[in-house]
Amino acid sequence: MGPARAPKIDVGILGATGMVGQQFIAQLAGHPWFRITWLGASERSEGKKYRDLTWRLSTAMPDEVGELTVEHAVPGRAPRLVFSALDASVAGEVEQAFAAAGHVVVSNARNFRMDPLVPLLIPEVNPDHLSLVPAQQQAKGWSGAIVTNPNCSTVFLAMSLAALRQFDPAAVSVVTLQAASGAGYPGVASMDLLGNVIPFIPGGEEEKIENETKKILGSLQNGHVEPHPVVVSAHTTRVPVVNGHTEMIGVRFEKNPSREDVLNAFTSFRGRPQQHRLPTAPVRPIIYLEEANRPQPRLDVDREGGMAVFVGRLRPCPVLGYKFVALGHNTIRGAAGAAVLNAELMSAEGMLD
Amino acid sequence: MGPARAPKIDVGILGATGMVGQQFIAQLAGHPWFRITWLGASERSEGKKYRDLTWRLSTAMPDEVGELTVEHAVPGRAPRLVFSALDASVAGEVEQAFAAAGHVVVSNARNFRMDPLVPLLIPEVNPDHLSLVPAQQQAKGWSGAIVTNPNCSTVFLAMSLAALRQFDPAAVSVVTLQAASGAGYPGVASMDLLGNVIPFIPGGEEEKIENETKKILGSLQNGHVEPHPVVVSAHTTRVPVVNGHTEMIGVRFEKNPSREDVLNAFTSFRGRPQQHRLPTAPVRPIIYLEEANRPQPRLDVDREGGMAVFVGRLRPCPVLGYKFVALGHNTIRGAAGAAVLNAELMSAEGMLD
Amino acid sequence: MGPARAPKIDVGILGATGMVGQQFIAQLAGHPWFRITWLGASERSEGKKYRDLTWRLSTAMPDEVGELTVEHAVPGRAPRLVFSALDASVAGEVEQAFAAAGHVVVSNARNFRMDPLVPLLIPEVNPDHLSLVPAQQQAKGWSGAIVTNPNCSTVFLAMSLAALRQFDPAAVSVVTLQAASGAGYPGVASMDLLGNVIPFIPGGEEEKIENETKKILGSLQNGHVEPHPVVVSAHTTRVPVVNGHTEMIGVRFEKNPSREDVLNAFTSFRGRPQQHRLPTAPVRPIIYLEEANRPQPRLDVDREGGMAVFVGRLRPCPVLGYKFVALGHNTIRGAAGAAVLNAELMSAEGMLD
Amino acid sequence: MGPARAPKIDVGILGATGMVGQQFIAQLAGHPWFRITWLGASERSEGKKYRDLTWRLSTAMPDEVGELTVEHAVPGRAPRLVFSALDASVAGEVEQAFAAAGHVVVSNARNFRMDPLVPLLIPEVNPDHLSLVPAQQQAKGWSGAIVTNPNCSTVFLAMSLAALRQFDPAAVSVVTLQAASGAGYPGVASMDLLGNVIPFIPGGEEEKIENETKKILGSLQNGHVEPHPVVVSAHTTRVPVVNGHTEMIGVRFEKNPSREDVLNAFTSFRGRPQQHRLPTAPVRPIIYLEEANRPQPRLDVDREGGMAVFVGRLRPCPVLGYKFVALGHNTIRGAAGAAVLNAELMSAEGMLD
Repeated sequence: MGPARAPKIDVGILGATGMVGQQFIAQLAGHPWFRITWLGASERSEGKKYRDLTWRLSTAMPDEVGELTVEHAVPGRAPRLVFSALDASVAGEVEQAFAAAGHVVVSNARNFRMDPLVPLLIPEVNPDHLSLVPAQQQAKGWSGAIVTNPNCSTVFLAMSLAALRQFDPAAVSVVTLQAASGAGYPGVASMDLLGNVIPFIPGGEEEKIENETKKILGSLQNGHVEPHPVVVSAHTTRVPVVNGHTEMIGVRFEKNPSREDVLNAFTSFRGRPQQHRLPTAPVRPIIYLEEANRPQPRLDVDREGGMAVFVGRLRPCPVLGYKFVALGHNTIRGAAGAAVLNAELMSAEGMLD
Repeated sequence: MGPARAPKIDVGILGATGMVGQQFIAQLAGHPWFRITWLGASERSEGKKYRDLTWRLSTAMPDEVGELTVEHAVPGRAPRLVFSALDASVAGEVEQAFAAAGHVVVSNARNFRMDPLVPLLIPEVNPDHLSLVPAQQQAKGWSGAIVTNPNCSTVFLAMSLAALRQFDPAAVSVVTLQAASGAGYPGVASMDLLGNVIPFIPGGEEEKIENETKKILGSLQNGHVEPHPVVVSAHTTRVPVVNGHTEMIGVRFEKNPSREDVLNAFTSFRGRPQQHRLPTAPVRPIIYLEEANRPQPRLDVDREGGMAVFVGRLRPCPVLGYKFVALGHNTIRGAAGAAVLNAELMSAEGMLD
Repeated sequence: MGPARAPKIDVGILGATGMVGQQFIAQLAGHPWFRITWLGASERSEGKKYRDLTWRLSTAMPDEVGELTVEHAVPGRAPRLVFSALDASVAGEVEQAFAAAGHVVVSNARNFRMDPLVPLLIPEVNPDHLSLVPAQQQAKGWSGAIVTNPNCSTVFLAMSLAALRQFDPAAVSVVTLQAASGAGYPGVASMDLLGNVIPFIPGGEEEKIENETKKILGSLQNGHVEPHPVVVSAHTTRVPVVNGHTEMIGVRFEKNPSREDVLNAFTSFRGRPQQHRLPTAPVRPIIYLEEANRPQPRLDVDREGGMAVFVGRLRPCPVLGYKFVALGHNTIRGAAGAAVLNAELMSAEGMLD
Repeated sequence: MGPARAPKIDVGILGATGMVGQQFIAQLAGHPWFRITWLGASERSEGKKYRDLTWRLSTAMPDEVGELTVEHAVPGRAPRLVFSALDASVAGEVEQAFAAAGHVVVSNARNFRMDPLVPLLIPEVNPDHLSLVPAQQQAKGWSGAIVTNPNCSTVFLAMSLAALRQFDPAAVSVVTLQAASGAGYPGVASMDLLGNVIPFIPGGEEEKIENETKKILGSLQNGHVEPHPVVVSAHTTRVPVVNGHTEMIGVRFEKNPSREDVLNAFTSFRGRPQQHRLPTAPVRPIIYLEEANRPQPRLDVDREGGMAVFVGRLRPCPVLGYKFVALGHNTIRGAAGAAVLNAELMSAEGMLD
């Protein structure tokens, strides 16, 4: 845990009534640095006590949040730091309005992820991308800012590859087996998913993985992000799992690491969240499991608070070089937890002062 | 259907009481050419009426089979043609004994699949490999013979690749999402599979796919099979699906086909079972589905009597060249149905006369 | 099968584009007496070829239906006999309009089920209730008519009880474990149903079972149905099963049958569909399974074309008298198949001439 | 929490390597009063470090337990207090040997549950039954003792009824929807449970519920337990849920409580664990959920540490009087957690001094 801080930083939630908004609330319950004081949603929920809305998570709704009254998601009464759980259909306009009005928007929405001036941040992987913010503010004329986290499936792939960046990954093939919770609520119909596999996820899921990974691993050059040259091929599927995206990954490296080199790279991987001991940072961002049949969503996804990536089955791939399995919690490390960690990093580095 | 034949050929089932044995019985119910007259199993079931054993399939047990008495699985009273549903732990010894005693053993077991003198047969793909049989008989001193079908996951991959053989497939990456029924009975514990993905299948599943594919696509040269040079990388997973293995396949070709070339190759693919109009042969061995989210086990696996391979989502792969999805029924086209089709081909080509 | 009939009777489907409409189309594919010639739906689908709409079933769309153009669901061009797969939100008004315009509406909707002049028909149970039709026509001023089938869960309970009617059932407790397909499409969210039980089904499911059962088992007296005095208590749950409602039933009888009496009543139960040999009638409406752990949805629900009720585990109940399990296919015998059998009975009894 | 105690009480686990044994270990991790110092199992595991065995839970194996070496399950080196997670096939003999040798055996096995001298204990319901222990010791000649907890499904029913004992429950009908984890490991085959309902649980599950409930609610009279006169009818099913047994319960009372009376009885129910503030006791043993569709396994089973019973949908039953739903965590409150709470009560009442 970081040093004692008094008082906590007030935060707001944009899109507080949806599934992702609830996951933000759960992730921030009892947070040592942040305190939810404002909930924004569409006009439909305006004026309602939060506890009178439907709560869909298995953890209890925090009492102090239940007492808050939902407001219309417009700038003004919100605190400076807001987390955005907005749907992509409205996030573009709303987040821009908040940034223009001086808010720091830490967003899970996809709208600004590929904007060249907006950090697409994984604190362990590319904390230096936060230095895009001043240029962003200047170019857009915003007194606030927008910082984004990647698509859920991208996070686990990009963290795995970041650990191996030293070996120059050149080509990556990834097949995802994604959980139902990744589709929001109501998401996929039970008739479509019970005892079934759907070999396609709409909304450009594969393109997001292919493009976001290159930006995240990219390097800052002259104030912009130069995408990493790695070529990524993604094939996404939906499987009847509640939480946890499993990814079968093959990688061709430019360099020629031994299996031991790769294994060491996984287990020794650390980043700035671990240096800062950020409140929700896992001690080890990547945990390698030795058992032949792991990681598995049901056994592993809730470990480490859902903030680590679990990797297993590292072995040679006759086609690409190496192959392995990665697993992550899609609604925590892949969404709300990712954004909260982004805000923790920004706080630790003085960007919220 | 083929021409009228009278009378039907008597067949026996080795391993008749297990899950695969039951699938053979279901597949042969009402078959126009074959008639089950003999059931062999371990001594434990010897002397029991078949209808007094536990039947685990959702189709009804055929009445005429229920009346048969299970015999010990030793040669002697069995008809010349026997299907083997034996477990690998005993198949080696028993099948050899039957072949030596003059039986034609059409086997689903893995024991002899990679034997250089034993055809690993998919009738649409490598019917010429049946010409190994005389050399097999001579070398082993058998008056009978053994013919095998591939591992379930191999069948769907090999059929897909066979359709594209003209483009010289050089490297293949396949990730399988395999159904519970592929593990036999009791197979995977429900605690392990409910709402879960297991990223590993024991028993050398990945090696089987990698090696069997090369043999099946291989060419006959001087009386032996020269393996196809394609390099295959397989990653197998178990998912909570009852029937139907889904495979995410990427292929690099030596030649440079257009997407239309590949699509045409899939849809125009036909083989000797279609020429012979074998009783259980699908009209089209590969059916390409245009919908973006198909094939799916729940919607597609039972179509065409479970004997076709369903392919979809053909598109360029930035890493390998092309990628697509294939789906097949693992206990039909991937097991009992594969063996029955093998026997139909042998019958049509006069090898059972 | 019944006697040869030429030509087939033209039929229309109201609500042809929804899940239930598709089930009607599947149930009528290749029907020996009926031929679909007209498809009605909301204005949204008007003018579209049926094959251009999304088909959600695992059986193939019949070719001849794919060629039909969807029309607006108003009387006029529809044939005299129409099946209604309409949602309850619109069925009341539309069905009434069709009946007034001279159509015979054989409906799966709930709107008119409890109307005292409308038969709530299970052909094996209360075929005499069809004699309500003339009074219905006179009272409502319709030249056509409406005949309904029960709620899916009611069918299996009412058929079980009808077989035992001679013992005067007085009190019934039923707990249902209902499949996802009973909720239509998209129905229940996968997030809500994966690995879960929902102990409540909205829309008055329990009240429907409690009330419809009394009407179905009721007797005709002076031109109206006198409800059966049996008291029914229903508790409905949703479980992660695709097709098949399982019902745990306890019954107290006024009379004091032995277990053998009850068992004989189940196995000897036959009705008018069996006398008429209606095309989709099961040979035995109730099939008793002796195995201790049957019936089960996965193993039994598709048997007998989904038209039989499977019963098992008959044994004394220390609280009520007897208890047993019943299982039926909710979208076939519980919906589209029920309506088609109703129309077959009406045809066989000359009501469609 | 209870008063500070130093040092902790050493405890052993009989049957430490099975699924239930692992659940005991998880339940005792970090326990404020008890410390695992001894692990007993069959000779097969004797001498192995615990961490070298397969751990099947999603929570991590406690480090200090991993260091222990498994011993053969015979008295001698075990501490005085042992928890028994033994399978019924061996529990009878082994538990008796331990009790004879002076150990206090707090058992989850079924073998001694119905022994008239052995408490079948739920601390909130029948703590006075612990007074059977001296007579047990005398009659059996044991210096130790055996105390048992009920079958998992019985616990949730008996706790619900105990809260309503004042209204004199006379007849109870219960249908259970039980989770896969209740069958141990490997338990039910995935082929049998995926997308299915099995309307039967072997091993006398229904009889256990019917008989154990009467003993638990029974009263002590002249040194023995006089069974409660309530008549219970149980119907048990297995459903594809990982953890959490759902029970649909109907009750006829001798007295005539209002719905408000019953509701108040649920919400105000407390017992001796709450008075003693035992470490794992829930603040409220029964939690009534107002939402129409609760309790649900996925949303509720892990709340309150798995130690509360969740009740909902209380409403009149036209057949019996009242009906409602109860849900409990079968491996915690229904097994290991039940036994640990039993031991806590015994400790708080001085029976372990």
